[in-house]
Amino acid sequence: MDYSRRQFLNKVGAVAGSGTAYQISMLLGLAPSQAEATPRAKLTALSGDPVRVIILGAGISGLVCAYELERAGYEVTVIEASPRIGGRNFTVRGGDVIDEMGHRQVCEFDTHPNLYFNAGPARIAAQHRLLLGYCQELEVALEYFMDGNRQAWAHDPNFADGKPIRAGEYVASARGFMTELVAKSIKRGEFDKRFSDEDAELIFEYMRSYGDLKPNGSYDGSSRAGYASGGMTEAPTYKTPLDFQALFSNFFWKSRMSDTEGWDLCAPMMQAVGGNDNIVKGFIRNIKSEIITNAPVQSIMQDTGGVAVAYNRDGTMQTIEADYCMTSIPAHLLPGIKNNFSSEYLAGLSSLGRGKLMKIALQMKERFWEREAIYGGITWTNQTVEQIWYPSQGINDKKGVVLGAYPFEDENQMALIRMTPQQRIDLAMEQGSKVHPRYGDYVESGVSVPWYRMNFMMGCGAEWSEQARHQYFSLLQKPDRRHYLIGDQISYHTSWQEGAVSAAQHALNHLNQRVSAARSA
Amino acid sequence: MDYSRRQFLNKVGAVAGSGTAYQISMLLGLAPSQAEATPRAKLTALSGDPVRVIILGAGISGLVCAYELERAGYEVTVIEASPRIGGRNFTVRGGDVIDEMGHRQVCEFDTHPNLYFNAGPARIAAQHRLLLGYCQELEVALEYFMDGNRQAWAHDPNFADGKPIRAGEYVASARGFMTELVAKSIKRGEFDKRFSDEDAELIFEYMRSYGDLKPNGSYDGSSRAGYASGGMTEAPTYKTPLDFQALFSNFFWKSRMSDTEGWDLCAPMMQAVGGNDNIVKGFIRNIKSEIITNAPVQSIMQDTGGVAVAYNRDGTMQTIEADYCMTSIPAHLLPGIKNNFSSEYLAGLSSLGRGKLMKIALQMKERFWEREAIYGGITWTNQTVEQIWYPSQGINDKKGVVLGAYPFEDENQMALIRMTPQQRIDLAMEQGSKVHPRYGDYVESGVSVPWYRMNFMMGCGAEWSEQARHQYFSLLQKPDRRHYLIGDQISYHTSWQEGAVSAAQHALNHLNQRVSAARSA
Repeated sequence: MDYSRRQFLNKVGAVAGSGTAYQISMLLGLAPSQAEATPRAKLTALSGDPVRVIILGAGISGLVCAYELERAGYEVTVIEASPRIGGRNFTVRGGDVIDEMGHRQVCEFDTHPNLYFNAGPARIAAQHRLLLGYCQELEVALEYFMDGNRQAWAHDPNFADGKPIRAGEYVASARGFMTELVAKSIKRGEFDKRFSDEDAELIFEYMRSYGDLKPNGSYDGSSRAGYASGGMTEAPTYKTPLDFQALFSNFFWKSRMSDTEGWDLCAPMMQAVGGNDNIVKGFIRNIKSEIITNAPVQSIMQDTGGVAVAYNRDGTMQTIEADYCMTSIPAHLLPGIKNNFSSEYLAGLSSLGRGKLMKIALQMKERFWEREAIYGGITWTNQTVEQIWYPSQGINDKKGVVLGAYPFEDENQMALIRMTPQQRIDLAMEQGSKVHPRYGDYVESGVSVPWYRMNFMMGCGAEWSEQARHQYFSLLQKPDRRHYLIGDQISYHTSWQEGAVSAAQHALNHLNQRVSAARSA
Repeated sequence: MDYSRRQFLNKVGAVAGSGTAYQISMLLGLAPSQAEATPRAKLTALSGDPVRVIILGAGISGLVCAYELERAGYEVTVIEASPRIGGRNFTVRGGDVIDEMGHRQVCEFDTHPNLYFNAGPARIAAQHRLLLGYCQELEVALEYFMDGNRQAWAHDPNFADGKPIRAGEYVASARGFMTELVAKSIKRGEFDKRFSDEDAELIFEYMRSYGDLKPNGSYDGSSRAGYASGGMTEAPTYKTPLDFQALFSNFFWKSRMSDTEGWDLCAPMMQAVGGNDNIVKGFIRNIKSEIITNAPVQSIMQDTGGVAVAYNRDGTMQTIEADYCMTSIPAHLLPGIKNNFSSEYLAGLSSLGRGKLMKIALQMKERFWEREAIYGGITWTNQTVEQIWYPSQGINDKKGVVLGAYPFEDENQMALIRMTPQQRIDLAMEQGSKVHPRYGDYVESGVSVPWYRMNFMMGCGAEWSEQARHQYFSLLQKPDRRHYLIGDQISYHTSWQEGAVSAAQHALNHLNQRVSAARSA
């Protein structure tokens, strides 16, 4: 082994010196992290006359702005339409109300630290540097969220009697098929025109490593797929590989097998211990300014001197004035609130589509999935529910809350959104039973959070068409006079907390420059 | 998107119906888990005359045997040579002694629940059903162990000025290169003889999904590699892909990029909360039989009536007799203990090589890796230390214990084994500094556990040559009269706890049948 590796490295040295154009120094440098691309705002501390800012919406973006502005000496008031602080950062526990338009639900989960459901953002990527910075500063305890799980299932009801396949078995065969294709073509000389003999040999070796091919370049199965038998006290035998027709007759490869390759979705991912609303609680602990809840905004009017916001509190109209306003109210709701925005700004706001993300959660009386060797992670199915997530917290607990549906396809989202809560649960149980025998029998209670129909939100994952992005993104990113749009909606990462936090930094930086410039003028 | 997917599924339906030979029903069945392949022993409860069993070695395998036999009514005594119960399941904390031959070390880590080091088994695979079953039964709390981490580094000191590359960037380019090769060859018709037009189109689409290729089949970069700039509040731009010469001039693809594809190494993996020796403590809590420590065995003598074991306790020779003996004493040490084993059995024992696994751990005064967006997982380097592991526990803590070396290559293992503890730490600091600037400055204290030189062990990861496996594995798996060999050494998973637990089951099943047969005779 050592010898052949040395040979290999010597060969590599020769190849590397062959004068091919490299972009190595640039490529291999320590890449700037995303945090550096959208740095944390550093606000100039105010002194002298106060600057007043009204923040509309107490979601992550609004809380970040309140936290930062307050620390820099601004006078801040936060106004939130709903009774709850946090926006779509919403951890549902037993007793919580789900304020869906026309379908108010009360969650009936048991009271237990691990029996909760992150109805909004559930996953924090290691690359989400700004959000993670706040978690550290606010002392929000984090733990791993298991995203990709090779033991979870890939399932297509229209194929092979609907029997699920372990993701790991599928992946091993896919890699075997792909690399065998390259390795054998290389051996046959089919790439002759493109590669030197030396390169061809390297490629052959690398394909063998990538796909776990036999020395002749064939994929005949691999322990990566799990053993057919043995492996511990008996000699291991491999499973027969899935043949390529089988691989290609399942949706998994095309749609979802590479999900965890994504920049936001690769391991490791994290969640706040005890529920992601502990991030919200971290901000609340550290914000002294008033946060007025139950206060739907009725008008946002600006003139050259300031902004006046009217809101309804307990049936009474209140008005508050300030120098600036930052709002995470969904763009599609803003035009329906009395305002004097420019017509172009209004056209921009109207160009954003309502996002259709929705989730269903089920409290299971037993953690049956752990008996299938599944500890967290995601099963993908080609049914309406699309995803089944197993909880990352509470390994070996008695009960657990499973995410029973999280569709990404429009038609699946809309099908579930249009149902009653009970119909959603019924469908999730029926479709889950296609993956896990007796799935429905374990369900004790369930809730659904269709953001498209949630009061004061009416959407999640603002949809930017390419056209709207081109025409309006920059426009909306700039303030309309004294009014700043914030929230994940005004980022390239809609529906992610990092998008919300980044958009907040962008607005804060702009305001800081503006106020500083005015003061030094 | 919906439309094209429907088209795709329709097409797939047509292909699937084309009559190619499938092994689908077999392939897609719910595969038996490894637990079913090596089931938990079900011992017949004893009544009447007692059956006495001596267990030599209080590692995981011996503890499993003691636990099971005791519950079935056997009379059990465990004899352990060292002062510590647990064998290579050894969690090192501040104050612990590392009993290396000639280099006794005392660990100087701070006292803190997260500042520990699993010097032996650190990772539990979801597929290790037997071990996980015991964890559940013994109420050992588990949490995730982060193995693969796309933010960790791939590092080769001989390349590109030794600058490390994020694993995720490397992987994205590797997939891009590979799939582009297939996709473009398909388009050029180079595989014409092998695939129908329909298949070729499917393969092209699947390669695009796998490698994140452009519609024309080119890999021009991907967000999977991280952004060159933007992505949050500015439009994202992609990094230039590593070209294939760059990919092939680094050891990572060939040696380590696919490590986490392994059946034992894919996500999710787990560890015991607070240190893996909590598994040992779980057994101790539940075993009533005597466990005699500090008692090196001096002889194992059998006759037709029983087994007599002599051991040295505080300078005095003691003898104990029993009906059977199960021993996890390393095979390479057994021939050096007075015995009357058959000559073939002795030849078998002598055929096993001493495993060379060794680890170095460093207490770091700051978790600098988290500032690099690394939360657990493994950096691979082509230096002697080979691996750097970041702790999976204590995200955002002040300090952390990093595994600073865990070589797999013989020459690297032996180089470190032959050094003094201080030389090992020095080398780990020097080589770690090639990956992380100022790495050495963070080190507060370090320990090394070279199992090859640890008293009473003298090895980890028993090495079976193909020849020895063929000639002796079955022989050693059977008892030599009344003497059973146990431990990971007599499994196909040496150095894994699941190997030890499985080997224990194998011996227990054999003994159970034997005792049952004798009683019913």
